[in-house]
Order: sequence, then C-alpha cells, then structure tokens
Amino acid sequence: MGFPINSYKKSAEEYNRALKVIPSGIYGHLGPAEGCFVPVSAFPFFSERAKGTYFWDVDGNRFIDYMCAYGPNVLGYNDEEVDEAAARQSKLGDCVTSPSTRMIDFAEVLVDTVASADWAFFAKNGGDVTTLAILTARAFTRRKKIVFFKRYYHGVAPWAQKIDYPGIIEEEVVNNIYVPWNDYEKLAQVFEENKGEIAAVISQPYQHGNFTDNELPLEGFWQKVRKLCTEKEAMLIIDDVRAGFRLDLAGSDHFFGFEADLICFCKAIANGYNVSALCGKEFLRNTVSSIFYTGSYWLSAVPFAAGIATIEKMKRLDLPKLLNDKGIMLRDGLLSSAKKHGYDLRFTGMPALFYLRIAGDSNGPDDSLMIHQRWIAEMVKRGVYFTNHHNHFLNSAMSEQDIKTTIEIADEAFAVL
Amino acid sequence: MGFPINSYKKSAEEYNRALKVIPSGIYGHLGPAEGCFVPVSAFPFFSERAKGTYFWDVDGNRFIDYMCAYGPNVLGYNDEEVDEAAARQSKLGDCVTSPSTRMIDFAEVLVDTVASADWAFFAKNGGDVTTLAILTARAFTRRKKIVFFKRYYHGVAPWAQKIDYPGIIEEEVVNNIYVPWNDYEKLAQVFEENKGEIAAVISQPYQHGNFTDNELPLEGFWQKVRKLCTEKEAMLIIDDVRAGFRLDLAGSDHFFGFEADLICFCKAIANGYNVSALCGKEFLRNTVSSIFYTGSYWLSAVPFAAGIATIEKMKRLDLPKLLNDKGIMLRDGLLSSAKKHGYDLRFTGMPALFYLRIAGDSNGPDDSLMIHQRWIAEMVKRGVYFTNHHNHFLNSAMSEQDIKTTIEIADEAFAVL
Repeated sequence: MGFPINSYKKSAEEYNRALKVIPSGIYGHLGPAEGCFVPVSAFPFFSERAKGTYFWDVDGNRFIDYMCAYGPNVLGYNDEEVDEAAARQSKLGDCVTSPSTRMIDFAEVLVDTVASADWAFFAKNGGDVTTLAILTARAFTRRKKIVFFKRYYHGVAPWAQKIDYPGIIEEEVVNNIYVPWNDYEKLAQVFEENKGEIAAVISQPYQHGNFTDNELPLEGFWQKVRKLCTEKEAMLIIDDVRAGFRLDLAGSDHFFGFEADLICFCKAIANGYNVSALCGKEFLRNTVSSIFYTGSYWLSAVPFAAGIATIEKMKRLDLPKLLNDKGIMLRDGLLSSAKKHGYDLRFTGMPALFYLRIAGDSNGPDDSLMIHQRWIAEMVKRGVYFTNHHNHFLNSAMSEQDIKTTIEIADEAFAVL
Repeated sequence: MGFPINSYKKSAEEYNRALKVIPSGIYGHLGPAEGCFVPVSAFPFFSERAKGTYFWDVDGNRFIDYMCAYGPNVLGYNDEEVDEAAARQSKLGDCVTSPSTRMIDFAEVLVDTVASADWAFFAKNGGDVTTLAILTARAFTRRKKIVFFKRYYHGVAPWAQKIDYPGIIEEEVVNNIYVPWNDYEKLAQVFEENKGEIAAVISQPYQHGNFTDNELPLEGFWQKVRKLCTEKEAMLIIDDVRAGFRLDLAGSDHFFGFEADLICFCKAIANGYNVSALCGKEFLRNTVSSIFYTGSYWLSAVPFAAGIATIEKMKRLDLPKLLNDKGIMLRDGLLSSAKKHGYDLRFTGMPALFYLRIAGDSNGPDDSLMIHQRWIAEMVKRGVYFTNHHNHFLNSAMSEQDIKTTIEIADEAFAVL
C-alpha cells in the first residue's frame, strides 16, 4: 500500500500549447474530449518515451499500459527484433516510386498465416480496408445494402458513421441496416425483408463495443451466419482490426470456427508501424483488383518489414496463448480484490482484450458509471493505465510482476474509493 | 550517345511471385495495370534501394527518378537530416497510448509556415484530409452539395470517385457537381442554380490532371472564385496534396494570391514519412473539433519529427525557387532537343511538377499518344524514370549533372524514335 500519486503539471502546460494550434488540443480516440474513455483529471496528456509494456509521460510518471496505443503495441513498445527489421529496410528505402519486394514477402506471410486469406491488399488505416471490403462486396454482388451489428465500430469513413454525426448526410448511411448482436433471427428476417439487396454483413468477431459489457458469440451463431450469407450470396466481412492476432494468428474467424470472405487487419499487424491489410478469398481477387483504390504511402516498405518481423515473433511466442494466460492471471487477481472490497467487478470479452465494469452502483446516473470511473481514476493516478468504457489490450512484454503490481494497485484503489 | 538499355528479368520474376498473393500484383498508382502511366515493357516493377534522386531496381538498374514516389520524395530519398530526426524520435517512441509533444511542435511549424493555417489536424492519407475537409464544410454550412473542377483527383474515398467505378453507388456521388476548370461563368451559374445548397468548392491549385496538358489558373480566376465562395458562404477547399510545398512553402493558395478556408497537405510534407494534414481558418476550428474522426496511427510521433525536419530544410533551401530553377533548366534542354529532332514537345504545368506531351502525332489513335509513349519508353529503358500521362515531380537532390544526363538521354531517345 502507499503507491505514489502522479502529478501532471507539464502535461497540462503542453495541452494548453496544443490547444492553440490543434483543434481540441488532442483529437480522436487519444484525446480528452468527448471521445475519451479515460478519467481526464487523473491521466497524462502527452508521452515522452515508451519501452516494453510501459510509457513515461512528460512529467516523468511511468505507466503499466493496458491500452497499448489502442491496440498496435502487441510485442512491447520498441521491440528490438521489429525495430531492427524496420531500420534495416529504412536504410534501403521506404516510400519509393517502385515498391520493394518486402510487399510480396509480407503478403506471402499473411496468406500462409491467415486461414481465410488467398491474397492480401495493403493500406494505412483500418478504415481504408473496411471501406475496400464494402466496395468489393458492392462491386461483386451489384447490391447496395450493408448489415451492421449494433455497437459496431468500423472506422470513421462516412458510410461507417451515424446519421446524427456532424458532417454526415443521409445518402451516406441510407443503405445501412442495423441488427442486434447475436440475434440470428433478426438477421434472417432482415435478409427476408431485403431479398437480393444485401451486399454484405460486416462485423467484429465478437461484440467488443464501448460503454457496454463485451459479448462473445452464442454457440453456433457464426456458423449460422456463415451459412445464411453463403445461401443469400452476401459477403461476410470480418473487421478484425481490434482483435486480430490477439485471439488467433490465423484470424478471429478461425478462432470462432468459420471463414470470412473478407477480413480486415490493422493495429497488431506490425507492432505500431503504419500498415493495414484486407485479406480475402480467391473468388474476390479479380473484383478487388477492379476497385479504384490507392494511396501515397500504401506501398512503403518499412511497415512491411516490421509486419513480417511482428508476425514471425508472434508465431514463435504462440502469442494468443501467452496473452490469454496473462489475461486470466490479471482477471483472477482483479476479481478477487474487488470481491474482498465488496465490489461487483465484471471482466468481459476475451482476456487479451478485456472490458471492465463495476456493476451495481446505484448512486450513479446509470448503473455503475460513477464508482467505476472513480476506481479507474485511482488506478491511473497510481501508474496503471486502465480506461473507463473501452476494452483494454495486452502485450507480450508484460511480466508477471507487472500484473502483480497492477493487482496491488487495484487493491489500493478499491480501498480508497 | 549509346546509353545502355536496361533489362528487367528479376522484376518480371518478382512480379509473377506478387501475382500469386496480391490482387493485380502491384495495385494502384504504382502498378502496371490500367492505372499505370509508365510504359510497361520498358519499366521496372520493384525497387531494391533508393538514395537522393535515384532508385535502383531489383535488376540493379539505376534510375534518375522524376516521379519521386509520386510526390513524397522532395529532398531526396533517405535524406540524412530527416532520417536522423525520425530515428531520434523512433528511439523514444512512435505509436504510443498518449501522443508525443512532437505533434504540437509540428502543428506550430505548419501554423507558422502556411498562410491560411490557424490550426493543423493530422491523419495518414491525402484522402483522409480531403474527406475531413468535406465533412467540415458540410457540418459548418449544413448543406450537402460539393463543386469539383473536372480533371480533379481528391483521393479514393467513395465521394471522390465516379459513378461508373466498381463498387460506387449513386448515393455517394449524387451531391457532386462538376464544372470545367478555369470556367468562372459556369461556376457562378452553378451557384445560381443551387442557391443555398453548396457546402464547398474543392480544387487543386491548378489543373494538374492526367492525360491532359496541365493548365494554370487564368488571370484573376482564383480571386473571383474566392469572392464568390465568401459571398455565397461556401467553403473554399484547396487540395494541395500533390503540389503542396513545391510551389510555395506558405501553400499553393498563397502562391496564386488568395486564401483557402481549408487546405490539404500530404506527400512532400515529410519526405516520405507517413503523415497528412488538414489546415484551416480560425472560424472552422470548433467545427473540425466536432467531427468524429480518428485513426490507429494518426498521432504517431516519428512522422511528425520527420515533417518538422523536412519543412525546416525546405525553408533553408528556399525549395520552391530551387525546384523551379531546375525545372526550367530541364524544360529548356528537353524543348531544344525535341525541336532539333522535329518533335512538338509540350511542357505544361509548373516546372516543379511538369507534364509532358509530344503533340501532333497523326499516326496515333489520338493526338500524340503513340509517339509520346514510345519516347517515354526509350527514356525509361535508358535510366530516366519519366511517365506517360501524369505530371512529374522534382526533388532538391537532383544535380545539374542529373539534368544534363537526362537531356542527353532524351536526345538519344528522340533519335531512335
């Protein structure tokens, strides 16, 4: 007991500097504005350096980081094998008029590794490849409608946003249909009501949305969805941007026992180097070739070299098992500490991507929000970077001692609530 | 005379390997498929390394590269100052849960450098920031329609594609209006016909489209467009992804004597490191903050460090003047050689981004295409990477000797036609 409490003086100063030249100071999922799921007063705004499972903020505070840059950090920050492969390629060339053959090497690695991959197409954002998947499905089927499962997130392209978001017009989302997660009957009904009009079903491999306990697929759910899509000649697109490689190196569809037609990767694919990939089945190869789709940095070689090294190391480590074991150790410790202090902590989703919620807080405006947020704040102030209402991420550089320290800090945080 | 002719045996072998695992083998603007503007039989498919103004292909052929990775290479490949700044930041951290203050530093540099920038928002693709500009314009004006100038290219997001492209549905482009370049009367008429409905005019700073002689703005054109947009309360968006920093470090709008409301940068902004930026005026700061827009790698620190070093070096070199001088030297040599051999070579657009066409070829299916393509092929086979129907790019590492060699090779290529 008695962990030191962080102060964030320099972070606050830098944030004021940022506000002058950057809208919101820090925008998007890393920022303290509306989209932020971390307790603002308790958390750092800017990092100074990062290594392994830790980062240090501009005030010198160290964090055991359970967000992993929201996913990309899967082997530990600045992993030496990955960084050496990247540096070696960087000396030769990165963004050049003709691509490097590292692109072919990386595509071969993905085709060898990912069960549903007969080919790979590389871009930069997760949203670049979810968008390419939608374009491919529409081009192949010559249909317009796309089915989403509620609580989805497929990036920020206009088609993936919502009608009431600023700048979005109805035309961009008018062909979207929303179905509750795990509700096969509703999905089948939607196919009946839109006969011959559905181009694709797009989904994350399980429901790992924000502000909600995460939900795994019901027994047989994916097998029924797969069969329905095949029968109705609609494409089944798996958005594995967030979960990809952490559950199964062969793809999260493989983990749940089915095969997607198209599968989207990003984040863990190259340990933070900037690349995303769409992989898919042979019958879609010509269609994806026909799409008008390119970008200034899409064939840069350094992220391909980093991706090859990342996937090789993940295989050698048997990464999914390793992360699952760490997640279970953490889960058992956190649940036991919560119970001791009389809190009903829920730990949902897969252990490598766990979602946390303290349930049963009748003092809050909604079930659990207030006490949960206060607990998370006490964790972050003591150097464990947890988040309020978003899933967490594990990386292979996290040690047993890191997890033990995390559980000790959780215990102290429960005690001071 | 007597420059050696390249062979591409290994390129062809690697391309066959690529075809097995990548749709089209090489896709997009770097590939030999439909979108390619280089003479396929005469050009290399894969690069092995790059330095300064050259790259070497997998067969060991060296090229004086006038495509510069289609824009990003502005200071020479593997520029030591830029790479050192990037490597220094890389050792500290790149893609981390909290952003680095390099993000603020880079935004400050852009706000100091770009005339119409009161703030900067960073993403990855040029298309990320053209899309953000459209969302911002729609959110601010609460209108839907967007005016484009024909021959435009604003990236591959569905709204920026065309109705007959695979996978694109009419809803995505139904609010687009197309006006001929330099046709102010038509633009004014479009505003009359769509009163209170036009959210934005989006345009490149001059017409640098493919398969067409490039056209600078007519005298007073931009000033009239600026005035019209202001009167009609429509946003004026400049897509400076391709021309940005090569004409004027303060922005190509500044070069042509007006101010955009929103301006999009990519390519030359960080000498090949992966970053793009939307800059804009103070009155749009809150609107851009309200847009739901983020990405996994958008706040990564290494490209910010590279971008700062790139802009500092471009300022020190007075890069736009330097590239213009090189472009004029090249132009004079090429035109003189063409004249000597009896060809009507057209050199259009700005010298730093020149577009080439041999006019008056009555043997071709269309004016000039056949002879032009044969001439380009003879150049590429002798180690000058020119392209058929796309503008070229200069970089500051290109020497007078490189330009002299280019003109000698051009002379031999004209001779053998």
